Amino acid sequence: ECVLVLNCGSSSLKYSIFDTRNPDDTVHGHIESIGTYGTRLVQRGPKGVLAHELPQGGYAEAFGAMLSALMDPHAQVIREASAISAVGHRVVHGGRKFTGAVLIDDVVLAGIELLSPLAPLHNPLNAAGIREARRVFPAVPHVAVFDTAFHATLPSHAYLYGLPNEYYEDKGIRRYGFHGLSHNYVSLAAARFLKRRPREFKIVSCHLGSGASVCAIDHGRSVDTSMGFTPGEGLIMGTRCGDIDSGVLAFLARTEGLSAAQIDDLLNKQSGLFGLSGISSDMREVEQEADAGDAEALAALKTFCYRVRKYIGAYIAAMGGLDVLIFTAGIGQGSAGVRATALQGLRCMGILLDEERNRAASGGTEITRISSDTSPVTVLVVPTDEERMIARETLRTLSRDYLVRTSEAC
Amino acid sequence: ECVLVLNCGSSSLKYSIFDTRNPDDTVHGHIESIGTYGTRLVQRGPKGVLAHELPQGGYAEAFGAMLSALMDPHAQVIREASAISAVGHRVVHGGRKFTGAVLIDDVVLAGIELLSPLAPLHNPLNAAGIREARRVFPAVPHVAVFDTAFHATLPSHAYLYGLPNEYYEDKGIRRYGFHGLSHNYVSLAAARFLKRRPREFKIVSCHLGSGASVCAIDHGRSVDTSMGFTPGEGLIMGTRCGDIDSGVLAFLARTEGLSAAQIDDLLNKQSGLFGLSGISSDMREVEQEADAGDAEALAALKTFCYRVRKYIGAYIAAMGGLDVLIFTAGIGQGSAGVRATALQGLRCMGILLDEERNRAASGGTEITRISSDTSPVTVLVVPTDEERMIARETLRTLSRDYLVRTSEAC
Ligand SMILES: Nc1ncnc2c1ncn2[C@@H]1O[C@H](COP(=O)(O)OP(=O)(O)O)[C@@H](O)[C@H]1O
Ligand SMILES: Nc1ncnc2c1ncn2[C@@H]1O[C@H](COP(=O)(O)OP(=O)(O)O)[C@@H](O)[C@H]1O
Repeated sequence: ECVLVLNCGSSSLKYSIFDTRNPDDTVHGHIESIGTYGTRLVQRGPKGVLAHELPQGGYAEAFGAMLSALMDPHAQVIREASAISAVGHRVVHGGRKFTGAVLIDDVVLAGIELLSPLAPLHNPLNAAGIREARRVFPAVPHVAVFDTAFHATLPSHAYLYGLPNEYYEDKGIRRYGFHGLSHNYVSLAAARFLKRRPREFKIVSCHLGSGASVCAIDHGRSVDTSMGFTPGEGLIMGTRCGDIDSGVLAFLARTEGLSAAQIDDLLNKQSGLFGLSGISSDMREVEQEADAGDAEALAALKTFCYRVRKYIGAYIAAMGGLDVLIFTAGIGQGSAGVRATALQGLRCMGILLDEERNRAASGGTEITRISSDTSPVTVLVVPTDEERMIARETLRTLSRDYLVRTSEAC
Repeated sequence: ECVLVLNCGSSSLKYSIFDTRNPDDTVHGHIESIGTYGTRLVQRGPKGVLAHELPQGGYAEAFGAMLSALMDPHAQVIREASAISAVGHRVVHGGRKFTGAVLIDDVVLAGIELLSPLAPLHNPLNAAGIREARRVFPAVPHVAVFDTAFHATLPSHAYLYGLPNEYYEDKGIRRYGFHGLSHNYVSLAAARFLKRRPREFKIVSCHLGSGASVCAIDHGRSVDTSMGFTPGEGLIMGTRCGDIDSGVLAFLARTEGLSAAQIDDLLNKQSGLFGLSGISSDMREVEQEADAGDAEALAALKTFCYRVRKYIGAYIAAMGGLDVLIFTAGIGQGSAGVRATALQGLRCMGILLDEERNRAASGGTEITRISSDTSPVTVLVVPTDEERMIARETLRTLSRDYLVRTSEAC
């Protein structure tokens, strides 16, 4: 099987090819600045890198450019479009309706669009991408894989906010959680690395990238996560503020006359590492300036790590214990300093870091154990791979669907 | 010394008398519905209860009624106003300016009023009460005791939100925390009960009343607390929602057109136990209905307890350990069920509840140990007494102030 994985953003198209015959020879492509000047395609695969400018155009042109790049004779990915046997689409929000990956038909597509109020920046674009992809690949099955679905197992005491219950019942306001593909992937990878089954573990997974979230995974099921109704809740992120007293918003509306849109911009684009440090949303630069003695950068770094530590403690309490702690994504995989600071004082919970292993672990593509041999909790750095997870879920959905269809036919 | 403790609310006046010669013979009085019909005074003391209706009037009349009640020949509290040797005022918000109790003069009073934007429902009334009290008791020292002051020791990584740093620097937006008098009082009482000094302990204090907060106290100093810039953050409370994704507010503004004032009302008056259960903000009624099988009441109860549990875990992580866990206030002292549910699964953190002691502990006025004898963490139910804490802080401030004045005079 040859699965094309698609992730359509506001002005970008990310794509990957997974071939079950060569599972490690993945091809990743990225088209950015779609619809504006400077549209550019970069594609990396086993046969090398392809990079070129594209004429200005919309999604249709971007899909065309993707196909050409995939069929480029030097890249040797596919010979013709018909080599693609399935398409997996990353969809951000599945709401309460989609609690797992699903074969796309017109009803499903309408359902994804209906959820647009919950994810106005993502679902409409995801749906547009699906529509375009079905036009380009009309003969193959398309599967929607949701970033929220892994958290469909949250118990009500974890997903309910303290609002009047009709806000949940009628309006669907609850903790949905995001980064589900990543948390799911790294927990499965960690179990495989430890030669055990996911359902034998209590896991806390820390996805620390430009967006960041922590997830409690009990016996393979997500039982709590720090992102909530939106991806703005929880940890401090690149430009997002994370947890904040809602009274601050009322105060800013009252005393500064900020509108809802201005507050949204402040909390999501001006805050986080960028806002606290006054320097950058990139943790590497924040760490550099903190090292160089910048007080704000140091405060940003410490506040970021402290919040990770509190979530780890909270989720150990939530699950009544911990077996495996995972760090992943750009910061989680790249920063030994953040990992060490976040784990300060957690010896009392059985988390013993091996400083040397931790320092050595950064930047690799392998899973690395960074806890000491005597640590009751195993701490791992696990490179995430959301695209691979989408490819797997796509194939799993198709085989399940195939089983259902054939059994119904009998 | 005979200290009058005052707490002025929007239409109520609470007062207490502490006499250092009879430290246990406290008198408590409460005048409610000031400025409307049905104004009523109730006063309890060692000589019994006094209760009567008052004619309609404002704060001046309420102070007059208080004085008469205190001098009532049957109540035998004081013979004349001059028996009062000091007045301690509960002031909600000390901002960044007041980090401890302070002798009131005109500058201090102006400072308290200047902080009104931070506590619009409280500081103006606290200031009005101070003004009236200084008129009635012009010859004695008045001391302001702040509910935020205990949390002035929070480190920056605990008090900073993820906002641009000028929001802290210029606008004072940070975690202030509340219930400081209660958390301080119960931590001192717990240490005395255990015959140790407060600075020998890592303590988590759970104040669970109609307002509720958790506090991490490391070596006698508050290092984190769940209420923040306002008393609306953190736990689920009687009618307050506590922690919520700020994106929910943006969503409600966008999809329902709710104004800032409507959202404020929703989150602070319609939410919490009341909103989740659809029944009551009173935990006793919520527990009753949950016992009787009501699904929403059960969800409210479980969500409330789950959040307490997560904060306990987070604060153990924050302090790197725990010696003493305290429950206090109406729910904390009254509900064995809430305590047991909140502590489920915390055995992994050394918290071992003795079910029998826990059941037996409710409703008393004594400090009770409810952990098992082998529990690494000592769990206590400690009746809170914010008024006594105010009286103590008042006397402490006066003696310190006296020391300063006499040493300056030398
Ligand atoms: N070696 C490193 N040390 C610290 N931070 C890093 C390192 N490498 C990447 N990062 C951080 O990771 C972030 C991106 O993480 P990534 O998981 O790639 O992001 P996204 O969430 O956008 O997918 C960058 O903002 C950068 O701050
Ligand atoms: N025995 C009890 N069991 C459960 N809850 C109780 C009990 N007694 C009082 N409460 C709760 O405590 C709350 C009041 O707590 P209290 O500390 O007196 O409040 P406040 O925060 O207003 O000072 C009430 O709303 C009630 O729900």
